[in-house]
Amino acid sequence: MYPYIRENYTMLFDFYELTMGNGYFLSGHKDKISYFDVFYRKNPDNGGYAIACGLDQVIDYILDLKFTDDDIAFLRSKGCFDEKFLDYLRNFRFTGDIYAIPEGTPIFPGEPILTVRAPAIEAQFIETFVLLTLNHQSLIATKANRIVRAAEGRAISEFGSRRAQGPGGAILGARASYIAGCAGTACAIAEERFGVPATGTMAHSWVLMFDSEYEAFDTYCKLYPTASTLLVDTYNVLTSGVPNAIRAFKANGITKCAIRIDSGDLAYLSIKARKMLDEAGLPDCKIVASNALDEYIIRDLLSQGAKIDAFGVGERLITSKSTPVFGGVYKLCAVEDENGKIIPKIKLSENPEKVTTPHFKKVYRLVERDSGKAIADYITVYDETVDESQPLTIFDPDYTWKSRTITDFYAVELQKTIFKNGELVYHRPSTEEIRAYCAEQMAMQWDEVKRFENPHNYYVDLSPKLWDTKQLMLHQLSKG
Amino acid sequence: MYPYIRENYTMLFDFYELTMGNGYFLSGHKDKISYFDVFYRKNPDNGGYAIACGLDQVIDYILDLKFTDDDIAFLRSKGCFDEKFLDYLRNFRFTGDIYAIPEGTPIFPGEPILTVRAPAIEAQFIETFVLLTLNHQSLIATKANRIVRAAEGRAISEFGSRRAQGPGGAILGARASYIAGCAGTACAIAEERFGVPATGTMAHSWVLMFDSEYEAFDTYCKLYPTASTLLVDTYNVLTSGVPNAIRAFKANGITKCAIRIDSGDLAYLSIKARKMLDEAGLPDCKIVASNALDEYIIRDLLSQGAKIDAFGVGERLITSKSTPVFGGVYKLCAVEDENGKIIPKIKLSENPEKVTTPHFKKVYRLVERDSGKAIADYITVYDETVDESQPLTIFDPDYTWKSRTITDFYAVELQKTIFKNGELVYHRPSTEEIRAYCAEQMAMQWDEVKRFENPHNYYVDLSPKLWDTKQLMLHQLSKG
Repeated sequence: MYPYIRENYTMLFDFYELTMGNGYFLSGHKDKISYFDVFYRKNPDNGGYAIACGLDQVIDYILDLKFTDDDIAFLRSKGCFDEKFLDYLRNFRFTGDIYAIPEGTPIFPGEPILTVRAPAIEAQFIETFVLLTLNHQSLIATKANRIVRAAEGRAISEFGSRRAQGPGGAILGARASYIAGCAGTACAIAEERFGVPATGTMAHSWVLMFDSEYEAFDTYCKLYPTASTLLVDTYNVLTSGVPNAIRAFKANGITKCAIRIDSGDLAYLSIKARKMLDEAGLPDCKIVASNALDEYIIRDLLSQGAKIDAFGVGERLITSKSTPVFGGVYKLCAVEDENGKIIPKIKLSENPEKVTTPHFKKVYRLVERDSGKAIADYITVYDETVDESQPLTIFDPDYTWKSRTITDFYAVELQKTIFKNGELVYHRPSTEEIRAYCAEQMAMQWDEVKRFENPHNYYVDLSPKLWDTKQLMLHQLSKG
Repeated sequence: MYPYIRENYTMLFDFYELTMGNGYFLSGHKDKISYFDVFYRKNPDNGGYAIACGLDQVIDYILDLKFTDDDIAFLRSKGCFDEKFLDYLRNFRFTGDIYAIPEGTPIFPGEPILTVRAPAIEAQFIETFVLLTLNHQSLIATKANRIVRAAEGRAISEFGSRRAQGPGGAILGARASYIAGCAGTACAIAEERFGVPATGTMAHSWVLMFDSEYEAFDTYCKLYPTASTLLVDTYNVLTSGVPNAIRAFKANGITKCAIRIDSGDLAYLSIKARKMLDEAGLPDCKIVASNALDEYIIRDLLSQGAKIDAFGVGERLITSKSTPVFGGVYKLCAVEDENGKIIPKIKLSENPEKVTTPHFKKVYRLVERDSGKAIADYITVYDETVDESQPLTIFDPDYTWKSRTITDFYAVELQKTIFKNGELVYHRPSTEEIRAYCAEQMAMQWDEVKRFENPHNYYVDLSPKLWDTKQLMLHQLSKG
């Protein structure tokens, strides 16, 4: 990885974070310790899981927090902030705690992905950026993981920079895709910054720049004899592209090579091309396919017997086109009173699925000792522990008669401490390490959770103590 | 606008731009003058138009182009670039011409939005970033313009930062939304950088932070008596939120104020809330609605008589959720030979709609003198002019028997010169100026082009000379 100048995103906040901040400052709630949870309600693409991603950029953001003189001048110009508050912002930094599920972990609706404990102004202020980065990268990691799985072991390269939603969409999208299992990216800066392997060969313009397709191919083979991937659909794949590619490979004595097909009927063309390559004595020439692919099209192509060795996936991956929003939210779940006692908070809603789960919590993954597979996630009040030596009865928080007693399991606490009293205490893993961890964690999930259609609804259950707390608060509030 | 450190995106390129660049360098095509067009094929949301946006960031990018020593070291580490080429990159800058349709202009499929004339390596290199920024911001501007239109004069605020695809998705998305007609944004940094008015008041957490909803509202009214927008759905809109809001407004003598409803049945709740506010003597209290809105839901709400004065629109705007990809492409359309003669280039395709239109071109908008409305766009070879004093017969490029002769029109050349020989020659308008220009240009479009369902297919026609050139090349190529 090479050094680079990181853009400072202190000012990337929704304006209400600071109208509230100024309000907390002036109304005596400045130092009130508050707890906020990030969680989401629905898996993208009606899938069975999501992949946590984006924490490393939360860490950068927290470390970089700093209002410049220009920022203060801008805020003053808005005419709604107290001078004492603006003065306070000059030395603003994050002094609280952040707990989070590591990047690469499969996650499920309703559980706290990240929890903040901090004075109200600080905890409120970081909402926008924390959500932005977790929502974006978790979305892309989830989509990438689905696409990788559909390819059944064939390599997926992320090709979407040109269709990404802004520069970060491209760069961080490439990072998230790699963490979730892609083999690499086309995006060069994603390798320079994050070590995501970047590759690429030629566009149609390369072929058009020469007087003939053969000349374009032959020139490329001479320049890159060990990495020749020729794009064969500028004119006609079967009558021109593949024959010219074969001729160029042969003329240059190249056998380890590839062709790429970027339009037309990829199943038909790849089967025909495979036959031509094999007959020409090029069994090691790989076939790469691209053109508006996603997990559904890849699965279809493979079921039709397409002879494709690797896929380039662009716009439908980099924007998660079929579900381009990851709906993570940031909700107050508790405050501390003057004596440090934790007071749970709950938000009602006209929509019952939008009711929050109150309290400072812990989330455990329960794992079957025999199979090493995850059974359920189990959310408790912060001061509870799970006794692995005893049978544990878990129950559905909505349909409480659906219960199950598990034995012979172990419990893993999912959230790690990232910041403690404003200090980074987490060892930041490399992109490569996160990618390996993600593969390992996904292997602990049953196939039923991972399937595309009607996946198994993974259990996220509440401890009896937490469930009781929530019910009590709901009943009290609904009575008025 | 306040100064800020702009991130350098030189390294944000698809890797193949440089494998080709190295190849052009080594194969003698380095200085070959090439012409590339950016165009798109299909309007988002099956609409009748798109809005060009993102050019200002193309300009920043071109001005900033610079490989650092670290960049060169990284590229060397890839092991595929010639040392002479790496040396050439050290002083790399853009020396060519860029022509583009100004931001805020309604645009249509098939026409060149931006055209580059430059030595092959340079023209090829900038492909990724140029597409990324035009695709992203044109997408969001188009969506925003649709949503603004659905609101029939009511203000739309862009609220989507937390669901944006990366930081640029939020910041530049807010910019594009404002250009296309939104009244403002929640995203503070978009005002600091681009002058997009940022506003915001409170989240549910503000309400939960106090012992009661009334205390939260009363505190806010005292702090912000001239800008009190109270969020009324933390507990129950009609039995708690609105009554407490009314009580707080009254207690503080506030009449110019607003409430925001962020969940539940927005039509029903707004009608009931309006009645309660009016009966309480608060006719000037506005009602703001938010919660997963877009142009379709807003149109529905208004058709149901919802009493909503302004909308906050988040995730479905900032990601253009219903169509999250703008499919702009960057295609070689001509090269110059040693004598400076322009040789048109065309790309065939297995898919006829993917065939490109060759040649260095001009694009004119033909406007009816009487009505001031746009009739059609008209693409010519670069050396043609349009004689406004003579009747002009335009014809459909696919169904040539569909023709029409127009008189009493004027022709506006849409592309402006942005860079000439690498120098910026374009006066960069302010965000505010672009926004005003966009409104003016959209007013020149017939309502039939702007409607949501089955819009009129705006004509983008080719001059006879251009049409003949294309047909001749197609027939020659398909023969062999």
